[in-house]
Amino acid sequence: MSELPLKFDRQGLIPVVIQDDATNEVLMVAFMNDNALERTRESGYTHFYSRSRNTIWRKGEQSGHTQQVRGIFVNCEENSIMIRVIQQGEAACHEGYRSCYYRRLEDDNSYVTIAERIFDPQQVYTHAVGVKQEQAKDKEHISMDINHQV
Amino acid sequence: MSELPLKFDRQGLIPVVIQDDATNEVLMVAFMNDNALERTRESGYTHFYSRSRNTIWRKGEQSGHTQQVRGIFVNCEENSIMIRVIQQGEAACHEGYRSCYYRRLEDDNSYVTIAERIFDPQQVYTHAVGVKQEQAKDKEHISMDINHQV
Repeated sequence: MSELPLKFDRQGLIPVVIQDDATNEVLMVAFMNDNALERTRESGYTHFYSRSRNTIWRKGEQSGHTQQVRGIFVNCEENSIMIRVIQQGEAACHEGYRSCYYRRLEDDNSYVTIAERIFDPQQVYTHAVGVKQEQAKDKEHISMDINHQV
Repeated sequence: MSELPLKFDRQGLIPVVIQDDATNEVLMVAFMNDNALERTRESGYTHFYSRSRNTIWRKGEQSGHTQQVRGIFVNCEENSIMIRVIQQGEAACHEGYRSCYYRRLEDDNSYVTIAERIFDPQQVYTHAVGVKQEQAKDKEHISMDINHQV
């Protein structure tokens, strides 16, 4: 197999857009390192790199809402990736919406919610870990995964 | 007007996904700083931040293939943006394809081109600047705009 020509940034990361193969919705943006990309390709399910925890996580490992890879696409400059997925459980966003982009920014800087909530995050993440104490920890964990600032 | 709650990263940037409002294609990913976002909202046309040149550029300033904003959407964590646009000139990619994601990554690390080329970049960028010497410079400029690694 030839070497991948992808350009990871100074932190070894590359931005990844996830698009819904069924609806064409943009579901989320996250980052991968080369290992997360390798695991994604090997398993057929998306794995991302968490900058807050310096670890690789499999999307949906808590919620069960995994993403099955349908195709991986590379941009002109080979410095970003777009992946088309089959979204399991009908929601990619940990807030319970299909897409993370469920709010439109208005001229006055307010938000308008443009999507229906599919699940109640409290229910899903409570169920995933079983006890309430763990739930808070788990929700923070998920939130940190998606928060690329930390 | 209330303050925007968006979380820019340590470099003052936020990743932005551009989606075609007509076809739902993911056209590109780029970065904005707060000024680029402000100019985008004021003008109604996408502006990005070039990390290589430390400057803001208006998408299509050379090629004429501008992007008219139809809606700006914010993700759950407020650390990325998705913008739906009307793509002018039918191509977002400086390589002449509608989307920058015109190649699929195969298991053997080869690429398969999955889209038709809409314009010849040599023609478009030659026309834009008029002389051949300037064309090379301009093409580099465009390439650097899209290359988020440098």
